[in-house]
Amino acid sequence: MSSPTQEVQAPPAMPGRGTERRRPAPMKWWGWGHEGIAFSHDDKPGLRPFLEDALGIDVGRPTRAPAAFDALEIAAPELPASLRAALEAALGAQHVSTDALDRVVHGRGKSLRDLVRHRRGDLGRLPDVVVRPGAEADVEAIMRAALDADAVVIPFGGGTNISGSLEAPEHETRPVISVDLGRLDQVLSIDAASRLAVVQAGVFGPPLEAQLNERGWTLGHFPDSFSHSTLGGWIATRSSGMQSDKYGDVADLTRAVRVVTPNGVLVTRPVPSTSTGPSVREMVLGSEGRLGVITEATVQVHRLPERRTILGYLLPDWPRALAAMQALAVSEATPSVTRVSDAYETRFSLATKKTPTLLDRVTSRALATYLERRRGFDRAAMCLAFVGFEGSEAHVRAQRRLVGRIVARHGGLCVGASPGALYDQKKFDTPYIRDYLLDRGAPADVSETAAPWSALPGLYDTVMGATRGAFAELGVQGYVMCHLSHSYHAGACLYFTFAFRPSPGADALAQYDVVKSAVQQAFVDGGATLSHHHGVGTEHARWLAQDISEPGVAMLRALFGGVDPGANLNPGKIVD
Amino acid sequence: MSSPTQEVQAPPAMPGRGTERRRPAPMKWWGWGHEGIAFSHDDKPGLRPFLEDALGIDVGRPTRAPAAFDALEIAAPELPASLRAALEAALGAQHVSTDALDRVVHGRGKSLRDLVRHRRGDLGRLPDVVVRPGAEADVEAIMRAALDADAVVIPFGGGTNISGSLEAPEHETRPVISVDLGRLDQVLSIDAASRLAVVQAGVFGPPLEAQLNERGWTLGHFPDSFSHSTLGGWIATRSSGMQSDKYGDVADLTRAVRVVTPNGVLVTRPVPSTSTGPSVREMVLGSEGRLGVITEATVQVHRLPERRTILGYLLPDWPRALAAMQALAVSEATPSVTRVSDAYETRFSLATKKTPTLLDRVTSRALATYLERRRGFDRAAMCLAFVGFEGSEAHVRAQRRLVGRIVARHGGLCVGASPGALYDQKKFDTPYIRDYLLDRGAPADVSETAAPWSALPGLYDTVMGATRGAFAELGVQGYVMCHLSHSYHAGACLYFTFAFRPSPGADALAQYDVVKSAVQQAFVDGGATLSHHHGVGTEHARWLAQDISEPGVAMLRALFGGVDPGANLNPGKIVD
Repeated sequence: MSSPTQEVQAPPAMPGRGTERRRPAPMKWWGWGHEGIAFSHDDKPGLRPFLEDALGIDVGRPTRAPAAFDALEIAAPELPASLRAALEAALGAQHVSTDALDRVVHGRGKSLRDLVRHRRGDLGRLPDVVVRPGAEADVEAIMRAALDADAVVIPFGGGTNISGSLEAPEHETRPVISVDLGRLDQVLSIDAASRLAVVQAGVFGPPLEAQLNERGWTLGHFPDSFSHSTLGGWIATRSSGMQSDKYGDVADLTRAVRVVTPNGVLVTRPVPSTSTGPSVREMVLGSEGRLGVITEATVQVHRLPERRTILGYLLPDWPRALAAMQALAVSEATPSVTRVSDAYETRFSLATKKTPTLLDRVTSRALATYLERRRGFDRAAMCLAFVGFEGSEAHVRAQRRLVGRIVARHGGLCVGASPGALYDQKKFDTPYIRDYLLDRGAPADVSETAAPWSALPGLYDTVMGATRGAFAELGVQGYVMCHLSHSYHAGACLYFTFAFRPSPGADALAQYDVVKSAVQQAFVDGGATLSHHHGVGTEHARWLAQDISEPGVAMLRALFGGVDPGANLNPGKIVD
Repeated sequence: MSSPTQEVQAPPAMPGRGTERRRPAPMKWWGWGHEGIAFSHDDKPGLRPFLEDALGIDVGRPTRAPAAFDALEIAAPELPASLRAALEAALGAQHVSTDALDRVVHGRGKSLRDLVRHRRGDLGRLPDVVVRPGAEADVEAIMRAALDADAVVIPFGGGTNISGSLEAPEHETRPVISVDLGRLDQVLSIDAASRLAVVQAGVFGPPLEAQLNERGWTLGHFPDSFSHSTLGGWIATRSSGMQSDKYGDVADLTRAVRVVTPNGVLVTRPVPSTSTGPSVREMVLGSEGRLGVITEATVQVHRLPERRTILGYLLPDWPRALAAMQALAVSEATPSVTRVSDAYETRFSLATKKTPTLLDRVTSRALATYLERRRGFDRAAMCLAFVGFEGSEAHVRAQRRLVGRIVARHGGLCVGASPGALYDQKKFDTPYIRDYLLDRGAPADVSETAAPWSALPGLYDTVMGATRGAFAELGVQGYVMCHLSHSYHAGACLYFTFAFRPSPGADALAQYDVVKSAVQQAFVDGGATLSHHHGVGTEHARWLAQDISEPGVAMLRALFGGVDPGANLNPGKIVD
């Protein structure tokens, strides 16, 4: 294990809270977040028994540790002298790195598969060089040098991708350049009348919000990876955030892009809507580096809200929880967050509460008695929901009334602001739990999808069944849970989390593949999409044709092949 | 002139009003709408003096008439026997037409350039055959036959396109097939829970709304062309409608598509959002037939609103009118329509009021006195706005209060429901006015764009100046007016209408080109887009690279070239 750790802290960059402007440090080479920060069960008395019961693991004893960095076998970079010279001439030698740790950190993202292999010292095809452009002209020079040398270009934002979008193909024989956009981290201008900010693509979530908050604005984009991911990465993967119900997915927020392509710098105009043929802006959204390197975007910003609150609600069971969220989505209410956990995730959430509990109201004997005796709740079935409100005092008040009535019609009740405040504070911690479980030998991962409202109840049952079927097939003890988030008029996202204790002596990754494949196959078999906001990468590519049909894949091949005939741009991602 | 005409009637298909289900007849071969329906000034006492003053034409005497159909020189179709046989085998001979009127009606859309040339008998490269598939399998058979014969395929919905998207290239030597989707006119199913309707692409606006209204639903898409355009056409051009502020542009409404492409049937899933690489659904939106033939779409529908109203407002001048619309767009109000005319369009609107005036309140001496003496209005500067409200009684009431306060803060006032009702009733009539003016020798046309709020005041001035500059350069008397519609958080659409009286003996079309080009060039020079919702076609193609940049054009070429290597699909549109 790594050095002494401190408990995860909520990142300091939510709207209205002061934040520092320094450039974020790179993440651990073997896991999530910065060295010295980790998830712990010490102050969560319910978690240990929960995990022992759910996974059959004794969380008290970490049994696995990542390899020591010094013990890693790191292949020497193969960087032609002429290419190095061209890169150094363009960027300065200090921004052209063949440092071993740099190459290892930039070699992959943070998928479960990435973490397991990195921890084992199985590093894959590392980039030969990591370059750090400080301006769009630098990126143009990198692109020219790469194409001249027939090298591979892989853009790198925060490295949080969990779909295998950042790794070079295993047998890539050409030089591989990882382009780290981290120096492009400035909000360049804000057009207050149009509420549009011009922002460099390499900026991380917290410094982006800090720069905007200082001037009274927010982007309102808060994915789970917020602390460690970048604007360019969000755009390249069609990211969504927890307040996307109000602010929109990144596809909505991104009004214009600048992208260094093999044909020059693509520049689209920040117009609110346009009819100029198929949208090239939309082609960049989700392109995962296949069309070029995103250097800048014009994004929709909003004034920091006068009032902001997230309330907790309890629903008696999952069918009524789904129905309540659906009713909200088509009502005249416009909440900023709508999220509801199934009974399994609700139980997990209650198990992670700290000793001096903020969830007292939920679990107190009096409330429990009220729920069970007076409201007929089955505590094993109940579902915890969060609904967020933003805007003027009057707006928030009116919205709360609307939402309260709809939830009540579905047998639910408001349990106040404490659960919401806890959720709001801890929402960026979840990725750390994977490392915590891997330290104890248990793979854990997430798969998310979206489908029309009418398909969600059946889809949920199918996916839960397929996941448990995979556990049974493997003969392993596992746990699967789900929440609904990102509500739209037509449907919503279902977000599944699963973990299991591998069979003794088995290859954990091979067993993980069985479970992950069962989940993904259940998505596409159930009429849902292979991913709502995590992207395709290499992890989901084999389901792409089942989702968008073979002619859809042919359209993507046409686009990528025509723009990048030499397959120099992040080859192998989305489509082979 | 054509046979005796009746006054334009408001189409019968607005939500809540009963409509017939019969298939619409084709439009006049030489103009807008059906034979026997035309615009008239007879019952509009203010219009004749207005047009005499604005354009220097005596509207009492139509001086030009379209050629007689029997006098047209119509080139014989060149349809290889094997291709005809293949088409007839697939569709039945009755759905494979080489009829002269069919070919002339399908030869072009309804751009000003299309109308002038058709009226002159200059028919261009007519299609050799018009086919009418009755099922998606028919379209697949047409595609196979066309590719086997190296023929050109041009999809045809309602034929209302005004960007030159429907005409075959002048010197096309291959057989040209116009695929009229009119038989694909059914709402196939409605998923009430997800509010998604599966609809065939060839359905016209009124029968679509009729089928939805019958079951309590509406699509909420009402472009000016509504009566004569189709769902597939809206998707192929990225259409917007007058209630798009509430319901979204067609890009938002279209949740999934089925498209017959050279590689088979593209089928996307009706998921509310997805992260499957660049969106192939978005590639179909605006594709103008370059990627295949759209056969079906899954669209977002809404319940018919309990309450629906459009109110008129007067603003003292254009700068304050713009500012009021901007304030509305970023407020917590969610109107269904926001539209404001500049002083020139306001004057035109007032000139079209009928004798027993519904606009009495606006123009009454008492109101005029109040506006001028008490409110300091200059009647020559005032701007008429419409704001629409939909939803529950309580919602509409609250929204009206919000909007009223914002308008008042910008010096404006509500003038009640009469102007809004008139607008609502007459809004589909505008295209007829072009024929009316062409009958009197005056070309009239529209150009629309979108830009960020910060750019709109300057853009307006630039475009008005450029248009008047073009009139001056030509030495002609002309008129230009504008309205703002389609408000977004980041900006809005400006919609310009211009007309002029050509110089005696001059080529009206050559003079029109000078004016139209001045307008379009002012758009792209002012940072705006070449079109907000009319598409590119051939009319706007020369400004495309200035709008989306050369690398953007290269991306479109890559996509079209890769999907359609033989350039069989509507060649020459969007990009050459």
